[in-house]
Amino acid sequence: MDVLLKHRLAFTVEYRGTNYSGWQSQNHKNTVCDILTEAVSKIVDHKVTLFSSGRTDLGVHALKQYVHFDTDSDIQTGCFCLGVNTILPDDIAVRKCWHVKPEFDARKSAIDKTYLYKLYISPTRSPLRDLTHAQLYFPLNVAEMKRAAEALIGEHDFAAFRATGGYSHTSVRTIYELRIEEASDNEIHFYVRGNGFLYNMVRIIVGTLVYVGKGKIKADDMPGILLSRDRKRTGKTMVPQGLYLYDVTYDESLFL
Amino acid sequence: MDVLLKHRLAFTVEYRGTNYSGWQSQNHKNTVCDILTEAVSKIVDHKVTLFSSGRTDLGVHALKQYVHFDTDSDIQTGCFCLGVNTILPDDIAVRKCWHVKPEFDARKSAIDKTYLYKLYISPTRSPLRDLTHAQLYFPLNVAEMKRAAEALIGEHDFAAFRATGGYSHTSVRTIYELRIEEASDNEIHFYVRGNGFLYNMVRIIVGTLVYVGKGKIKADDMPGILLSRDRKRTGKTMVPQGLYLYDVTYDESLFL
Repeated sequence: MDVLLKHRLAFTVEYRGTNYSGWQSQNHKNTVCDILTEAVSKIVDHKVTLFSSGRTDLGVHALKQYVHFDTDSDIQTGCFCLGVNTILPDDIAVRKCWHVKPEFDARKSAIDKTYLYKLYISPTRSPLRDLTHAQLYFPLNVAEMKRAAEALIGEHDFAAFRATGGYSHTSVRTIYELRIEEASDNEIHFYVRGNGFLYNMVRIIVGTLVYVGKGKIKADDMPGILLSRDRKRTGKTMVPQGLYLYDVTYDESLFL
Repeated sequence: MDVLLKHRLAFTVEYRGTNYSGWQSQNHKNTVCDILTEAVSKIVDHKVTLFSSGRTDLGVHALKQYVHFDTDSDIQTGCFCLGVNTILPDDIAVRKCWHVKPEFDARKSAIDKTYLYKLYISPTRSPLRDLTHAQLYFPLNVAEMKRAAEALIGEHDFAAFRATGGYSHTSVRTIYELRIEEASDNEIHFYVRGNGFLYNMVRIIVGTLVYVGKGKIKADDMPGILLSRDRKRTGKTMVPQGLYLYDVTYDESLFL
C-alpha cells in the first residue's frame, strides 16, 4: 500500500560519471542513483525512492539531472542541499532543491532535454580534458557538419541512430535544436535538445556528424540515412566521457 | 665531466596536478618531474635531466609547462611525443616538441610567464569543477576587483604577496598584465602575466582580489598594501586546484 507522504521535493544533481556505472540502480554496481538514495534517505531520516528525468550511461556526466522524491520530512530546501552534500562523495553534489506540486514527475513532466557533447582536436592527448571530452586527431569540416545537422532537426524516425539494447517501442523522436559551436583550444561542442532520446542516440548523432566532418559521409546523404533506419550507415558511437546531460525543461508552474 | 650531447629538445607538457606533489623532484614524493624524467629517459634510451620553466606547487596544474633536455638520440619530435605519451600516466602528456638552439634554457630564456586562476561562485559545490576550480559561496564585486588589479600592474616589491618558504633574494617583480574575466556559469578567470613570481604569489594576489570583491579590502588601499610589504595585509592564499601554469613566452628564434 502506498503511503501518502507530506512533501514532494525536486532537486538538480551534478556528477562526474567517470567512476560510476551510470545513473540507474543495478545489482552489484556503483551507480549514482544508489549513492544518492542512501544520502537522501539519511538526511530525511526515512528510506526514499528517487525518480530522475532519465538514465545516463556508464561514464556519462550530468550538469543538471532532475530528480524528485516524496518525504515526510519538513526539512528546508537549503538545509537539504547542505546536508546531502556533506554525505555525498566529491564527484556528486545536489546543486538546487525546490518544493514541487504533487503532479511534478522528473521524467513525465519533462518538456525537453538537452545533452552537450564536448570534443577537442589534437594529435596529442590533453590530460586536463581527457576525463571530460572526447579526443579527435584531425581537423573536421565544421561547415559540412552544420549542414548535415540541419537534416536531423524535426520529428524523424531515428532508428539508424539507436544502439541495440534500448527499451523504447518507437524510434520516432523530435529534435528541436542541434547547435555546433567551435570553442577555444580546438574544441567543438554539440548541444542537442529534443523531446526524448533513444539508447546512445546523442553519441551516435555526434559520431555520424564527425564522419561528415571527416568526409566519410556527405551532408546531402543525411536525409537518406534517416530514411534507411540502418544503424550500419551511421557513424561510431562516441566515447561516454564527452557527454553531459545538460539541462531539462519543465513547466515552471510545477515548482512551488 | 659534462658530456656534450648532440641535440637539445624542448617540449610542452600538460598535467593535472591533483595527484602530484608539484613539479620539483623531492625524496619519496610523487612529482611530475620524476615521472616525466623516467618516461623521457626510456624513449631516448639514456638517462636525461629535465629543466623546466619553473616549479609548480602541490596540486597546481599546467597547460603549457616548457621543459628542455639534451640527448644523443636522433628521434623525430613527432615520434618523441607519441612515444612518451604511451608511457606517461593519463594525467600527464607531452603536447608539442621542438628542436631548439643550444642556448635555449626553459627557465633562463623565458621572457614572461602567464598563470590562470579559475574560480566559480555557488552556494553548492560543482563536482565537474572541484578538481580544477576554487569555489566561493557569495558574489563578488568584480568592478572593484578590476580597479584593485590595476594597482598591481608594473614593477613593484611584492613582499606582501609572498609566502614564507620562497628562495628569491629580491621580492621585486613586474606584472605586465592582470586580466579578470567573468565567464559563464558564475566563473571568474584571472590571467596574470609577469616576468617572474614569488612563492604562492599568484594565489595570494587572487586571494587579495577576492577580499576586495567581498569588501574586506578597498581597491584604493592596494598601493598602500604593496608599499607596506606586509603579508598580514593581503588576502588568503587560494587553494591550489584553481591554478594553472598557462603559458611561457620565448624568443621564437631559439626554436629550430
